[in-house]
Amino acid sequence: MEFGFVRLDASMADDLSVVNAARVSFAQESDELNESGVGLIRFLMRERHGTPFEHNAFRFHVKCPVFVAREWFRHRIGSFNEFSARYSTVGNEFFKPNIADVRTQVGKPGSYSFEPVSQEKAAMAVQEISKLNEQAYATYERLIDQGVAKELARVVLPVSMYTQFYWTVNARSIMNFLSLRTSETAQRDIREYAKKVEEHFSTSMPVTHKAWVENGLVCP
Amino acid sequence: MEFGFVRLDASMADDLSVVNAARVSFAQESDELNESGVGLIRFLMRERHGTPFEHNAFRFHVKCPVFVAREWFRHRIGSFNEFSARYSTVGNEFFKPNIADVRTQVGKPGSYSFEPVSQEKAAMAVQEISKLNEQAYATYERLIDQGVAKELARVVLPVSMYTQFYWTVNARSIMNFLSLRTSETAQRDIREYAKKVEEHFSTSMPVTHKAWVENGLVCP
Amino acid sequence: MEFGFVRLDASMADDLSVVNAARVSFAQESDELNESGVGLIRFLMRERHGTPFEHNAFRFHVKCPVFVAREWFRHRIGSFNEFSARYSTVGNEFFKPNIADVRTQVGKPGSYSFEPVSQEKAAMAVQEISKLNEQAYATYERLIDQGVAKELARVVLPVSMYTQFYWTVNARSIMNFLSLRTSETAQRDIREYAKKVEEHFSTSMPVTHKAWVENGLVCP
Amino acid sequence: MEFGFVRLDASMADDLSVVNAARVSFAQESDELNESGVGLIRFLMRERHGTPFEHNAFRFHVKCPVFVAREWFRHRIGSFNEFSARYSTVGNEFFKPNIADVRTQVGKPGSYSFEPVSQEKAAMAVQEISKLNEQAYATYERLIDQGVAKELARVVLPVSMYTQFYWTVNARSIMNFLSLRTSETAQRDIREYAKKVEEHFSTSMPVTHKAWVENGLVCP
Repeated sequence: MEFGFVRLDASMADDLSVVNAARVSFAQESDELNESGVGLIRFLMRERHGTPFEHNAFRFHVKCPVFVAREWFRHRIGSFNEFSARYSTVGNEFFKPNIADVRTQVGKPGSYSFEPVSQEKAAMAVQEISKLNEQAYATYERLIDQGVAKELARVVLPVSMYTQFYWTVNARSIMNFLSLRTSETAQRDIREYAKKVEEHFSTSMPVTHKAWVENGLVCP
Repeated sequence: MEFGFVRLDASMADDLSVVNAARVSFAQESDELNESGVGLIRFLMRERHGTPFEHNAFRFHVKCPVFVAREWFRHRIGSFNEFSARYSTVGNEFFKPNIADVRTQVGKPGSYSFEPVSQEKAAMAVQEISKLNEQAYATYERLIDQGVAKELARVVLPVSMYTQFYWTVNARSIMNFLSLRTSETAQRDIREYAKKVEEHFSTSMPVTHKAWVENGLVCP
Repeated sequence: MEFGFVRLDASMADDLSVVNAARVSFAQESDELNESGVGLIRFLMRERHGTPFEHNAFRFHVKCPVFVAREWFRHRIGSFNEFSARYSTVGNEFFKPNIADVRTQVGKPGSYSFEPVSQEKAAMAVQEISKLNEQAYATYERLIDQGVAKELARVVLPVSMYTQFYWTVNARSIMNFLSLRTSETAQRDIREYAKKVEEHFSTSMPVTHKAWVENGLVCP
Repeated sequence: MEFGFVRLDASMADDLSVVNAARVSFAQESDELNESGVGLIRFLMRERHGTPFEHNAFRFHVKCPVFVAREWFRHRIGSFNEFSARYSTVGNEFFKPNIADVRTQVGKPGSYSFEPVSQEKAAMAVQEISKLNEQAYATYERLIDQGVAKELARVVLPVSMYTQFYWTVNARSIMNFLSLRTSETAQRDIREYAKKVEEHFSTSMPVTHKAWVENGLVCP
């Protein structure tokens, strides 16, 4: 994650809100989470009653490569504001894989697996990627220096460039995100970010997180 | 609002979050709201850049008549959990208008206005409504006493009955709600509730609220 | 469903659109649904890849009691326009259960079951409900006759009154609706309507419908 | 748009559906669009009653550069399925500006304008962009040839690369999209695509389109 991060900027989130949202069905309300509340959360998760998990909010500030952000922004239940390369000059920060992470793809769509490549090939791949990042950024700088509009100059930048954004989202949507983006079929790079999101989620709503894990990571 | 209320249960909301969500476009971030931040909020409102107003959350607990709740639940950008008359016995709480609020409807769809009726007619109307509420609740109680399933017994209850729910929503969606539900064309009864929502909104996000008012109550 | 109906007003829906939406991942497109397309739909359903099921639309015109409509409108992914008792006079049409459908509720929240009641009790319940419907409508008519505004007069009408609406929705959202509203835990009355929706869905998208049934009615 | 296109794959859209969705408020329905229906559409647009414009659907198949697609995917009310560079090899198709479209940016955020640059500078910019596209694709091909996983190899590709997707959306969401993406403050390149979307929209729903234009292109 070299230049990247997942920072929790603010939150309004606890397990009790799940219980109270569910119990309003019975015109009941609790001041604290007790054993029966924990049981209720597990019941809701198992039976996939999703709405009680929506009465909370997490505001994240994220920095990651564009190819990661593009997958992230496919999640429509949530709010985004992102860095704009139309308004600001892009910094010289690009994704570069670790040598150990260069792999080859085996199998068919829907059931790919990934195998290691030789150390030599991996090193060469990292070098190729770094070199292209440099060429692209040098081209970008020359275009900017010549006065070309930022929105046009940026088209030469690869999807390895870093971007940043705010993401505000509730626990139900987070669980959907995590189900897809921490899965083994997700790209390794977004999985790292998703893991950070999961840490913040489990810290704020430990009972909900545990119930979700026990339920096979299925979003309610 | 006799039996009704609008209670702010929790919030994650301030004006600064609007500014920071907008400034992430420029990779900038502020720790406090200053003059230029205020100007930015007014600019965003005027130009209808809506997304920066989404990075916050309000969780309301509301009790109101069903005919009010039905209008409320038409607002899809937000989360709801409501009392269920399938699971719990409904209380003997019904909407009854004030005598001064009984009016007659004049004009055509799209441009109704409302005129007062005679004191006598108004009193009679209030009495009719109260009486029906009582008949309905008595019928409901007899059905429940006979062991009829709650979900069936409740069908006799009028839309004047009270319900309650949690509503979690962001400022952009609140402004949309207020634009429609505080308007003169909205039903008087939901306007009262909307005004309470507006008070909580303006307390948490005074600069945003002011910019919205100055901008003619148009949702960005 | 006495006064009710579910009418398919228009649709843009076939199984091929699912296949093509999925295959755009590979820049491929088919003109007709073949064996491999059927297999792909089953794969997408099983693996819960939901988005390819969104590229279609059904526009329904529905008439049903308000207590059914209230559950229906909780489904936020879709579009609604409904009859307004603020603008128009409500007709004398109310839900009345069949004698065979009057039941008693046994068990606890989350695991209710329903048992028959005696023929006599059931008949009495139906009579109680009918009588209240009549009292309510008579009250409503007197209020209207006295010139009371329609939006106020309607508060005496029970949730057994009929309403009507347009509902435009895609197959993914329909499957979510059907998962919840055809289930044994759903109220008997909305299940009848949901079954009609399901018939239209299965006629337009038979392969998708079959894959959904085989997959345990789990919405992708 | 060299390699790009906006193709209407299917639609369920006409002006009459707007009228009928609005008139269900009065339990009325028309078989054809007449003068009073046209007036109603103009009224709904002016008063910003948005929901009647949602009971229709357009399914577009779009091919465009990634930097255009990234703006497009910010529109959350609608459905997307996109080409995946994780599953398929990317073709050698990249955005290259016309010489006449190379401009320089003048002014401040929120009020940029664009001025022409010299013919010579413009030609050089086009050449720089083309050259980088070639370097990037050559690097990509070498990585693929070495067996590097597609999902990793693609990180070197610039946002000028073409992608393709299906987009299914209703008229209300289209009007929101057009308000933002045909505006003078939108990037020239997405404006070209938005204009194509607008042509399809105005062909299917001419009265709605005209009312929207007359209303200052404000989304209801």
